[in-house]
Amino acid sequence: MTQETQCNSLAELLAPYAREANRLLEQWLVEPASPAALAEAMRYCALDGGKRLRPSLVLLTGEAFGDKANELAARAAVAVELVHCYSLVHDDLPAMDDDKLRRGRPTAHVKFGQAMAILAGDALLTRAFAVLGEAGGEQAAALVAELAHAAGPAGMVAGQVADMDLCEVPGGVEGLRYIHLNKTAALIRAAVRMGAMAAGADKPALDAVGRYGRALGLAFQLVDDLLDVTGSAEQIGKTPGKDLAAGKRTYVEHLGLDRARALADELTGEAAAAADALGPRGGKLRRLAELLGQRSH
Amino acid sequence: MTQETQCNSLAELLAPYAREANRLLEQWLVEPASPAALAEAMRYCALDGGKRLRPSLVLLTGEAFGDKANELAARAAVAVELVHCYSLVHDDLPAMDDDKLRRGRPTAHVKFGQAMAILAGDALLTRAFAVLGEAGGEQAAALVAELAHAAGPAGMVAGQVADMDLCEVPGGVEGLRYIHLNKTAALIRAAVRMGAMAAGADKPALDAVGRYGRALGLAFQLVDDLLDVTGSAEQIGKTPGKDLAAGKRTYVEHLGLDRARALADELTGEAAAAADALGPRGGKLRRLAELLGQRSH
Repeated sequence: MTQETQCNSLAELLAPYAREANRLLEQWLVEPASPAALAEAMRYCALDGGKRLRPSLVLLTGEAFGDKANELAARAAVAVELVHCYSLVHDDLPAMDDDKLRRGRPTAHVKFGQAMAILAGDALLTRAFAVLGEAGGEQAAALVAELAHAAGPAGMVAGQVADMDLCEVPGGVEGLRYIHLNKTAALIRAAVRMGAMAAGADKPALDAVGRYGRALGLAFQLVDDLLDVTGSAEQIGKTPGKDLAAGKRTYVEHLGLDRARALADELTGEAAAAADALGPRGGKLRRLAELLGQRSH
Repeated sequence: MTQETQCNSLAELLAPYAREANRLLEQWLVEPASPAALAEAMRYCALDGGKRLRPSLVLLTGEAFGDKANELAARAAVAVELVHCYSLVHDDLPAMDDDKLRRGRPTAHVKFGQAMAILAGDALLTRAFAVLGEAGGEQAAALVAELAHAAGPAGMVAGQVADMDLCEVPGGVEGLRYIHLNKTAALIRAAVRMGAMAAGADKPALDAVGRYGRALGLAFQLVDDLLDVTGSAEQIGKTPGKDLAAGKRTYVEHLGLDRARALADELTGEAAAAADALGPRGGKLRRLAELLGQRSH
């Protein structure tokens, strides 16, 4: 076991990667010729002190499979986070979840108006692909395809469409799994796969990393559901019970607390097993899954 | 002069390319695993009988520089049109231009609701990059960068931000030129450049093609302004005077009809000169610029 895998909290394990992700976002977020007001809105939406889970996963996986800092992994980290941030901005819009606050600050449309929020979201999504494409080379094209597939109409957008009841979704846990697989797990899976691809991982490793990301993404969302019910407002940074009150499907509603907790543990175990299949390279990914399964905020 | 350059109307010149663009869009628009309701909304937004100017420009330029059908140019044509279609869907939203009709049909948010319109737009934009990225290879990455730059925060989105008065814009014709360069010409320039890049054109040719696309894009928008004032409803497919009534800046308002007409001719001449610099390869592009300058709808 290497030193880093002894981290005792998720925040501790992620901290160095999250710091690097913030630095990279500062560097690549704004295209110089952008209008100042648009750049300001984009910065507000993307530099907001989030956990940076997704870019950290790209960097951490890139590090696990590569020997040194890798510009393509750095660009992939920025691209994945820009896609995540755009999705939050659009999901918060009045016509969508109509959220007024995110991480204690006014949401983008409250702060800048709906038109600018829609456009800043569009700009973040488009910028993600510019940052990746400008790396150039065959690998960059593969990363673009990976990210666009995960974020697109058979991935993250499909999950949001299902979550908003805009398409037919199976009832019960099956429908919930469909939503979480697409809305949350697809991008988390893409994050770890992109880190591994940027570092030149081979097909069997990419497959294991993909299994890891999918299980981690599902566990992450399930733990969110659990915290929505069991966490305090201080711990989770929003009103407890908000998802239930908003009529959102949750695992806790369908399975009850105990079975939902057991399923979270099972998914964490799945992620850990996939990390183990990577051998020593998977040490930090394994520890991350364990800590994510135990998180209280 | 080849046979094709003798076309007497823009529609006649574009027809074979527009047909091919429609076929390619049918083939690549929908990712099989997309929810049916989302796929239906995407099809409504993208398969609506538009002129297909942008994908036709990709295909026509690809043909001018290449010897045979080229999958990368075909994918680029689809990608450019998906980006154009997403921008129309988001521009029509109530928080933006609040348009209820487009080409005689209800706009996407009137037909499917705002949430689905926002998400279908997001899906079209993301899908554009999947279609390009999945081509694989170094050239695909370069095309992704080209498209994302033209469509992003220093391109098309900047133009829309300026057009909506969401950022500072210089007054008069200078501001108008900024808006049209970004909102319209950037994507048209990218279309011809992508066609040429996909066919392996060299740097001097790409530069000339870029000059052509920029001048053509500006002329296209200017002729739109002129038709808004001088055209009949039947000719232009919308209420004449709509742009003026909506308080949109137009060239006609700033320059008067005669000087606006003269500027359109000047830009058409600029495009024609750039096409001439390409030698015989530029024949069809030159004819297209002439016909676009003369169009009455």
